[in-house]
Amino acid sequence: MRRAVARSSFEPPARGNQWTTGGVGCARWGGVALGDVLKAAGLKPSAKYTAHYGADVHLSGNPETPTLSRGVRLAKAMDAHTLIAFEMNGKPIPNMHGGPVRLIVPGWAGSASHKWLKRIWIRDKEHNGPGMTGASYRVPTVPGVPGDPKFDTKTMRILESMPVRSLITNVKDGQKFPAKTREIALRGKAWAGDNTITAVQVSADFGQTWSAAQVAAPVNRYAWQKWNRKVKLPYHGYYELWVKATDSSGKSQAHAAQFWNPQGYGANVFHRVRVLVEA
Amino acid sequence: MRRAVARSSFEPPARGNQWTTGGVGCARWGGVALGDVLKAAGLKPSAKYTAHYGADVHLSGNPETPTLSRGVRLAKAMDAHTLIAFEMNGKPIPNMHGGPVRLIVPGWAGSASHKWLKRIWIRDKEHNGPGMTGASYRVPTVPGVPGDPKFDTKTMRILESMPVRSLITNVKDGQKFPAKTREIALRGKAWAGDNTITAVQVSADFGQTWSAAQVAAPVNRYAWQKWNRKVKLPYHGYYELWVKATDSSGKSQAHAAQFWNPQGYGANVFHRVRVLVEA
Repeated sequence: MRRAVARSSFEPPARGNQWTTGGVGCARWGGVALGDVLKAAGLKPSAKYTAHYGADVHLSGNPETPTLSRGVRLAKAMDAHTLIAFEMNGKPIPNMHGGPVRLIVPGWAGSASHKWLKRIWIRDKEHNGPGMTGASYRVPTVPGVPGDPKFDTKTMRILESMPVRSLITNVKDGQKFPAKTREIALRGKAWAGDNTITAVQVSADFGQTWSAAQVAAPVNRYAWQKWNRKVKLPYHGYYELWVKATDSSGKSQAHAAQFWNPQGYGANVFHRVRVLVEA
Repeated sequence: MRRAVARSSFEPPARGNQWTTGGVGCARWGGVALGDVLKAAGLKPSAKYTAHYGADVHLSGNPETPTLSRGVRLAKAMDAHTLIAFEMNGKPIPNMHGGPVRLIVPGWAGSASHKWLKRIWIRDKEHNGPGMTGASYRVPTVPGVPGDPKFDTKTMRILESMPVRSLITNVKDGQKFPAKTREIALRGKAWAGDNTITAVQVSADFGQTWSAAQVAAPVNRYAWQKWNRKVKLPYHGYYELWVKATDSSGKSQAHAAQFWNPQGYGANVFHRVRVLVEA
């Protein structure tokens, strides 16, 4: 299971935590399929959407203020990979990771994977709890002018499957390499929401040429995939190492974020790492 | 014949005229092959480089101040497409275009195509006239940190063949299209210095997907090539239309300029045109 956002990619910047290159997690979750629980509980023919409620108190500390309550379409709730989880990497889920019991809705925005779960309400329409309306966890269906103060949130849709992403994980931005370094073995992770990864490519020449990485099979349907690729650095000096992934829908990551939106959801630009090979 | 620069692509910006998307020309030039003239004049075995001199006076107005004097390797001077030209589009060359007589060194930086030509000196080493040394018409061989005030010009090489480029020529940046426009027929030009164009691709979704354009054969070896491609715009709203070309060396245009340099030579980023389809 993994999820990621990267508000910092938008120009002009979006509001909120900038998330730098994004947030993503891929743990081994244990639990029961939410769908099995819902089947056992019995679903009416009118069932359309879930509504999730947790035990946390609003950040204001006021117990009367409603906290985030998101939900998902019934089809995603019934997917065999959507879990009511009580184990993380073979142990009880730590409280800071949402234990004792949380939802895992893999490939979708993390806010759908409700922590400290205490109630699921089945609704006959799209859930409208806090975090489901306006610009919250919603992305444009109509591309708006970046930074438009009159951005029309009425044309937004709920953010569901996350867009294709990849990261270089073994080289830090700003890292220096010793003189005479002429090759770096890059490695990292790639994932694609409800889609699958079809290619990962790296560039060390600002995107003039791209080389295909080796991509390992995921350990299961929604796990991220490891990739690796050696890149040549013909000289000493300044380089940017770029990685991009392509998913089963044919879409690739790009250099610029598309579909600007006030909250900065859904950006999936290349991961770019600046390095210096010393003279 | 065409040439282009685009200083405005660099971050931080390079000095001088920013050239916005660049400067390029493709006229029909008539004249004699420079190589035929040099053969008739007789070349010594030590001949290595040309040195070009024009009739113009330095911008300061001082007739004692040397003006630009660039030159090319002998192989380029002897190429059948390098001309001493006296006709432009079938007529005498207008003075503002370098007439009565100028050089045409196709595919290379325009400054090699000396205007108002009055003398060619054959040298036994790389020419070192004004415009041949330091950061003038030179590009890095070692990638430097963008904006580095101690950028080392000693590692630069003379800018010769220009990098691959393409332009959208029938849509203006900022252009508005009427409501219900759902398709735009794009067209433009592409060129690749001493290389040839192998592909032109367009994107209307910020580079997530690219579509191949139809590319016409050039009218001769160094002419730019016309391309065209229809793009779908699924909604009203804000789009960027991007074009990139790939050349016979396998290099494509990219989103960011590589090899930052103080004078801003050699940038060949995508041409990006912002458009708005009205609601």
